[in-house]
Amino acid sequence: MYQQYPSILLENAVNELSRLPGIGKKTALRLALFLLRQEVLDVARFTEAISTFRNEIRYCQCCFNISDTDLCSICASEKRNRRIICVVETIRDVMAIENTGQYQGIYHVLGGVISPMDGVGPDDLNINGLEKKAVEGAVDEIIFALSATMEGDTTNYYIFKKLSNFPLTITTISRGIAVGDELQYTDEITLGRSLLNRIPFEKTLK
Amino acid sequence: MYQQYPSILLENAVNELSRLPGIGKKTALRLALFLLRQEVLDVARFTEAISTFRNEIRYCQCCFNISDTDLCSICASEKRNRRIICVVETIRDVMAIENTGQYQGIYHVLGGVISPMDGVGPDDLNINGLEKKAVEGAVDEIIFALSATMEGDTTNYYIFKKLSNFPLTITTISRGIAVGDELQYTDEITLGRSLLNRIPFEKTLK
Repeated sequence: MYQQYPSILLENAVNELSRLPGIGKKTALRLALFLLRQEVLDVARFTEAISTFRNEIRYCQCCFNISDTDLCSICASEKRNRRIICVVETIRDVMAIENTGQYQGIYHVLGGVISPMDGVGPDDLNINGLEKKAVEGAVDEIIFALSATMEGDTTNYYIFKKLSNFPLTITTISRGIAVGDELQYTDEITLGRSLLNRIPFEKTLK
Repeated sequence: MYQQYPSILLENAVNELSRLPGIGKKTALRLALFLLRQEVLDVARFTEAISTFRNEIRYCQCCFNISDTDLCSICASEKRNRRIICVVETIRDVMAIENTGQYQGIYHVLGGVISPMDGVGPDDLNINGLEKKAVEGAVDEIIFALSATMEGDTTNYYIFKKLSNFPLTITTISRGIAVGDELQYTDEITLGRSLLNRIPFEKTLK
């Protein structure tokens, strides 16, 4: 449908918008016609925000999180414990953990997980930077916070092997039944693990 | 969720993207991070297409369709019958009718329908331009192709009253059971109308 556009300019805009993930030609047309109804200045601000974001964004030299400066606000903060490093896959994971308000250490963004199926090997990830920090003796604890998938587990194990000779603690975030979940609908593997990794009840009272 | 962004540039981009209809903060973040993974040149082409579209698009002086030139390609075409005008609400309706390949006349885009609930009166629509064409005697037939809603019917009736003294035919696209629909699931009003407006069977054989 909608193969014929009344205008080349509209067609170009629709084609570009439909390159965004989850946005097909029909939605792209709706977005383009929405933008047409907005003030010229508003659309200029819209495109300006996107270009500036793409052209001027930097990656933190310490944790590889995105940042406006060479060092991200977390790594630059005096309040954070630089000797505890939480290893995550992406920038979004950093944001998710920050929103819990429960973590006072810094991060290390891998940029993905080892996944032979997708052609992602250890060399494609920021693992060397993490190893370097361990070599320098700048770390007390490394916390794995990767996805609870085969790939996440593989990556955890790979990094664990690399760092096992250094004098540091390596932990992983707990896996178990999500808050609010009902037992009967939980899959067997999660339920089995949550039994194996059971914790003293007093701990849950804090 | 996600109140804290690691970067002002990211936050601006997310805020702007989330102003698009149907796109919330979470999707906007996904789009922003997608754009971050694209080449700088690709993102430049993306924003350029949108700005150019917004800044340089024009409206056809004849039918008010969007156009790259003063007269849209339909109105400018030698092959179209300028004496038959199809009245539609929006640009998208023009595209939908064009895609049927069944129409050889030109269009008149109203820009909406009369809707007191939304504060849209006759003066907010391009009705005067249509009347002017009738006054000039440039029209043989006007075809209403507005939505089959209360507002569409009101608008049809308003225009019909305005033009009823001119020597021209006023028709409306037929309403009835959509191709592929089953009778038992059709609403009573549509079914009733399709009985009242029944057509000679020979006509359907053409």
